[in-house]
Amino acid sequence: MNVLAPAAARASLQQRRDEAPRGAYLKNAWYAIAWSDEIGRSLFPRTILDTPIVLFRDTEDRVVALRDRCPHRFAPLHRGTLSGGIVQCPYHGLQFDSAGRCVHNPHGSGVLPKAATVPAYPAVERFMLVWLWMGVPELADESKLPDFSYVDDPALTTIKGMVQGAGHYELYADNIMDLGHAQFLHTGLGAPAFTKGAREVRQEGETVWSNVASLNEELAPLHAAIKQLVGRRLDWWVDVRWNAPANMDLTLYVDEVGGSRQTAKWFDRNFHVITPQTTTSSFYFWALSRNYRVNDTELSLQLKAGLDAAFADEDKPMIVAQQAAMGGEGFWDLHPVLLPCDAGAIRARRVLAKLIAAETQEATGLASPE
Amino acid sequence: MNVLAPAAARASLQQRRDEAPRGAYLKNAWYAIAWSDEIGRSLFPRTILDTPIVLFRDTEDRVVALRDRCPHRFAPLHRGTLSGGIVQCPYHGLQFDSAGRCVHNPHGSGVLPKAATVPAYPAVERFMLVWLWMGVPELADESKLPDFSYVDDPALTTIKGMVQGAGHYELYADNIMDLGHAQFLHTGLGAPAFTKGAREVRQEGETVWSNVASLNEELAPLHAAIKQLVGRRLDWWVDVRWNAPANMDLTLYVDEVGGSRQTAKWFDRNFHVITPQTTTSSFYFWALSRNYRVNDTELSLQLKAGLDAAFADEDKPMIVAQQAAMGGEGFWDLHPVLLPCDAGAIRARRVLAKLIAAETQEATGLASPE
Amino acid sequence: MNVLAPAAARASLQQRRDEAPRGAYLKNAWYAIAWSDEIGRSLFPRTILDTPIVLFRDTEDRVVALRDRCPHRFAPLHRGTLSGGIVQCPYHGLQFDSAGRCVHNPHGSGVLPKAATVPAYPAVERFMLVWLWMGVPELADESKLPDFSYVDDPALTTIKGMVQGAGHYELYADNIMDLGHAQFLHTGLGAPAFTKGAREVRQEGETVWSNVASLNEELAPLHAAIKQLVGRRLDWWVDVRWNAPANMDLTLYVDEVGGSRQTAKWFDRNFHVITPQTTTSSFYFWALSRNYRVNDTELSLQLKAGLDAAFADEDKPMIVAQQAAMGGEGFWDLHPVLLPCDAGAIRARRVLAKLIAAETQEATGLASPE
Repeated sequence: MNVLAPAAARASLQQRRDEAPRGAYLKNAWYAIAWSDEIGRSLFPRTILDTPIVLFRDTEDRVVALRDRCPHRFAPLHRGTLSGGIVQCPYHGLQFDSAGRCVHNPHGSGVLPKAATVPAYPAVERFMLVWLWMGVPELADESKLPDFSYVDDPALTTIKGMVQGAGHYELYADNIMDLGHAQFLHTGLGAPAFTKGAREVRQEGETVWSNVASLNEELAPLHAAIKQLVGRRLDWWVDVRWNAPANMDLTLYVDEVGGSRQTAKWFDRNFHVITPQTTTSSFYFWALSRNYRVNDTELSLQLKAGLDAAFADEDKPMIVAQQAAMGGEGFWDLHPVLLPCDAGAIRARRVLAKLIAAETQEATGLASPE
Repeated sequence: MNVLAPAAARASLQQRRDEAPRGAYLKNAWYAIAWSDEIGRSLFPRTILDTPIVLFRDTEDRVVALRDRCPHRFAPLHRGTLSGGIVQCPYHGLQFDSAGRCVHNPHGSGVLPKAATVPAYPAVERFMLVWLWMGVPELADESKLPDFSYVDDPALTTIKGMVQGAGHYELYADNIMDLGHAQFLHTGLGAPAFTKGAREVRQEGETVWSNVASLNEELAPLHAAIKQLVGRRLDWWVDVRWNAPANMDLTLYVDEVGGSRQTAKWFDRNFHVITPQTTTSSFYFWALSRNYRVNDTELSLQLKAGLDAAFADEDKPMIVAQQAAMGGEGFWDLHPVLLPCDAGAIRARRVLAKLIAAETQEATGLASPE
Repeated sequence: MNVLAPAAARASLQQRRDEAPRGAYLKNAWYAIAWSDEIGRSLFPRTILDTPIVLFRDTEDRVVALRDRCPHRFAPLHRGTLSGGIVQCPYHGLQFDSAGRCVHNPHGSGVLPKAATVPAYPAVERFMLVWLWMGVPELADESKLPDFSYVDDPALTTIKGMVQGAGHYELYADNIMDLGHAQFLHTGLGAPAFTKGAREVRQEGETVWSNVASLNEELAPLHAAIKQLVGRRLDWWVDVRWNAPANMDLTLYVDEVGGSRQTAKWFDRNFHVITPQTTTSSFYFWALSRNYRVNDTELSLQLKAGLDAAFADEDKPMIVAQQAAMGGEGFWDLHPVLLPCDAGAIRARRVLAKLIAAETQEATGLASPE
């Protein structure tokens, strides 16, 4: 399905009734919570979706994720101890296994109260990340993970980084779904093509694409320098694929004039995976896999430094300022003036809102782990 | 109309029904937002009445005041750029003119959405200050500015300063409307006359006067020293004129015994102009114009240092403490015990409350710029 | 009345309807606000029960406690001056006596408005502490003070300390009512007996006892070292007596095998007196009186340092973390999983909730001092 951007923008306003309850999260979804290499055989705390979680590896090095709050007196479990895959509460010594079941009560007769369990979240490791399923555990389905398998391709060279900061996760997603900001916010990149190039917004099921094409054009100067293509006219494309809640693949394809994405000689595949920490702050995981200069370690270090700076010093401060300017009000409540370039971001917001609304209304007959 | 102070205090309690909705501002009024010399050809942000505003001078050096929030994605405009009197948003590059109209959209076809405007506030420069009209622009009326023209009188010497701090703007106004605090809070001034002198509270239309007279008395020691009148008995008056929302003229007239305000040989004319930043914090602009020792630069520096210290280190901390002690409750909700010396402040509160209540109820048929 | 701990825990859940309104305090009760030696002939501010209070000694060195807010303009009285047992407001100079009556108005005719009073709180000095009655003054009854008279016994040696920190006062009380946490939180003490020993929970009127007995056992290693009883088998008991709102006596009795509490050769009597500062923070006053090594000053210093560290660096951070993990919700709203070892704490919570509920419903016909 192809839509013209302005029509999409208008439609999005007409369909505001689709909007999900403010502050509600999509629960039955995978959320990246940490890099795999952050989690070892020790207690690692992190809050996502307003929920404090403690992560660790069990005796077989499988990642375990439990609610970071003892059901007895609400002490944070991550302050306790881990031994043989068993977590001991720091306050009164209750012990919990990797399924969140209480397996030891050191007090009195040692009876284990049936209610003494902590929620355990289905966890998978994929694409260098640990992903948690935050809804009904029985519905956890690995096939619903977005595909970022290129980060595991040994023919490519991959770098990665993470930013944490104020800002609703949809603001971070908007930022990627409309790369027209690059010319103004990332002035060092110098990319008017994102502003001027032909845009295409497309929805396939619950996947949204926001693409830009530049045929027979020069690359942005920094892109050209990195790829050693300065001064050459080329065909190039930037495709962004969005999947709920806020998982994006961004690929820059570059080919000779008359070429195609499929035959692209040079490409950068990026993921931008945003996870809500709270309703006003986010974790932003990114990775970049390239097929050129793959053995150039110096280039990898430069790219890593450059992208860390762009996300932390340019994107994040702007989104922090946006969030502050919104003053606690919802995005739609502030009546944003939509431009054609917003079509992709708005389409993604609509899909997410529908998914949340459907989940809220649905009677699944299954309990969430809380 | 003259009233006895105690009667005024009693009446104010009886008329609590006049009170305006808590937290409401008088919108159709001029508010000082900055010194004229703070604003140049660059973007200057300041929040008044809970509203972030960006100020700058256009190509003809006229002061422009716009809402500091892009209508597209809520980025703060003051982080953008100013060129030829046009503000460019830092995020996606929309450009706005001095009337707040979007005049350039760099994306796609470049269509200018009709709704893409930011509120523009009528601004005037007067009495060294920039004043904004925060209500319906069509109602902006320069004749409603209070008169502080003495600061422009070349025969006088004028100094000025500004304090920003916690405290509702009416608490700052109360502080000037009852100078009886001077003896206790400004012990270096040593002015029992403000406590003991004959007081007169008077209302003329929407103007409130709170005056003190001391005939055939010595000046406060510090006043006497400054005026080189130590040990002399004199007639002196302190008149405070209040205009809504919180704009006060305070004049100290000093004359020989048997003289009058009109013939006063020595006078200090001060303005105390308070602008709400939020409902619990304020900007406090002050100026002092004197007709004696006008070429004494050293005295000017000493007066400036002394007044900065009095307002920042004595008045402000007390008002900050008052605001904190009020714990989020409204002034009247806490049932203040009123004294006769409160008559002027209470009268001013009543006038302001009536103006706000009238404005709230009124159907003007005109829209505010938001 | 003796109850089995598990039954008590079950019963407590059944009787949740007894629960008092969240955030309500028991007003008609004594609260420790300061050590006697903290209060002299100067103005000492401290907030308890969300109420700012100013304390001082009058000309006969009696402790006076007034609401720390002038009824005129809400200035904090503790920033004023004290002279001859009279407090002068720092802002406009109103003066108040030790009963909170306005005795001087320096303004105008000097009339004293009848309403110009500040609440005065009945205060007594007992057990090294200043206690205030926060409810109806006429109901203040010294016989309702809990008995900690051992701190005044010259045959014993007493040390004391205070901690202030985040955490509802009932969380601090829970911590003492179930010493089973000692093995896990106070690992330096090494006291499995608190976890394993026979427990008894008992209620007598509104007094709750939570006791542990260890017969023919070794002491905790640190206790044994302090008492120079390493390696000896002994009978020992830890009795905790609770009185509302959160005043606890904790006594460790140690005797030869076959002995009794009454004949105990060694004992430590402690008080743990918790006063709410706000609904989420507390003052924690503690004292320890011992009957052994009474002239050993070095031991006193070591005990003081050790207990300061245990309360400030082990108990307090855990309770701060509990409070944070509760995220603004009430204890019962979070459905804590109760263990048998919670019986004492839960019994105390129930008694307090009933007292508060009764007070809330009661029409006393008497006004509180506010």
